Amino acid sequence: MTKAIDFYFEFYSPYAYLASHRIDDIAEKHGCTVNWRPFMLGATFSITGHGPLTETPLMGEYSLLDMQRSARLFEIPFQMPEEFPKVSLSCARAFYALVDDQPEKAKALAKGIYHEIFGLGNDGTQPEVIARLAKQYGIDAEALLESIQTPEVKQRLKDETGNAIERGVFGAPFFFVDDQPFWGNDRLDQLGRWLETGGW
Amino acid sequence: MTKAIDFYFEFYSPYAYLASHRIDDIAEKHGCTVNWRPFMLGATFSITGHGPLTETPLMGEYSLLDMQRSARLFEIPFQMPEEFPKVSLSCARAFYALVDDQPEKAKALAKGIYHEIFGLGNDGTQPEVIARLAKQYGIDAEALLESIQTPEVKQRLKDETGNAIERGVFGAPFFFVDDQPFWGNDRLDQLGRWLETGGW
Repeated sequence: MTKAIDFYFEFYSPYAYLASHRIDDIAEKHGCTVNWRPFMLGATFSITGHGPLTETPLMGEYSLLDMQRSARLFEIPFQMPEEFPKVSLSCARAFYALVDDQPEKAKALAKGIYHEIFGLGNDGTQPEVIARLAKQYGIDAEALLESIQTPEVKQRLKDETGNAIERGVFGAPFFFVDDQPFWGNDRLDQLGRWLETGGW
Repeated sequence: MTKAIDFYFEFYSPYAYLASHRIDDIAEKHGCTVNWRPFMLGATFSITGHGPLTETPLMGEYSLLDMQRSARLFEIPFQMPEEFPKVSLSCARAFYALVDDQPEKAKALAKGIYHEIFGLGNDGTQPEVIARLAKQYGIDAEALLESIQTPEVKQRLKDETGNAIERGVFGAPFFFVDDQPFWGNDRLDQLGRWLETGGW
């Protein structure tokens, strides 16, 4: 059976964005698949007592430097959006509106939204941006914008976020493989080694 | 001129302990020296609003797993002490009582204390433990225990902690090379690459 990596990400997390550029290659190298699972990182803040890194005293300045330095190291285009962070409900709902029936298109849209936010520094939460990207990937944009307003899709994101927290997710990116949790873009090396060796 | 790495650490930080096993080798590989600088991590918590990882909801369980997994990966002996975290004033003061006149012995004592705390899981803050280790490294134990009670040494640790925070240190381990900040045991690879390439 093909092994699957669960990749939990928040659309407004710069480190999850960096990981989104790396996780599929790592999985492919080890013959694995990746389940992309956006969730609302903000929902964990009331539990951990933490907040957005960039707004945390002392950590804020460092994290901006570190994100940019890591992006240069991995040769990933990186541009902090002017408004940051933003609530990414529309992005995550759009993903879950698609993922059951069109998983590849859902993933393509997620990558497109990430590129919009951190590749170009634009506001990725706007319906017109999501609609434009949807069209680009052959997705029915009108139907998508309608479906992200439905109670079913709203509830789906709530459930996915609740399940993530239930599983121990408290940051982004967060990965599971063989039920082993790995937190952070900076644990992808260990995750790759885990897949290679079967664990240690 | 030989390049120096500033290594800020907290005696009760497991990740700083892991880094303490790696930093001298990395420095040596690149012809650098290391300035070991203990500080009181707790002093940053009132600024960042964070607290000890192991006491943070959701993060606590993960961090214990991650510390142990990282220790196994780097083949570093690791044992969480029963009482954790403890206030490490006596350890850090002992270091600063020695460092100006006997820098090598100060570093040896720091490594000895770290081994006591996280290698063996013992309480490294007790005067008798510090005294026993001091003797082992040829340090006058009685004079050391006296000097850590002096206003000068107490003030020195306050100043060092204040200077660290002034410089942007908010976690442990924390490194500077060429005034580039690197936070975390998991940034040592980037720090090594920075030394190798001169930066990117």
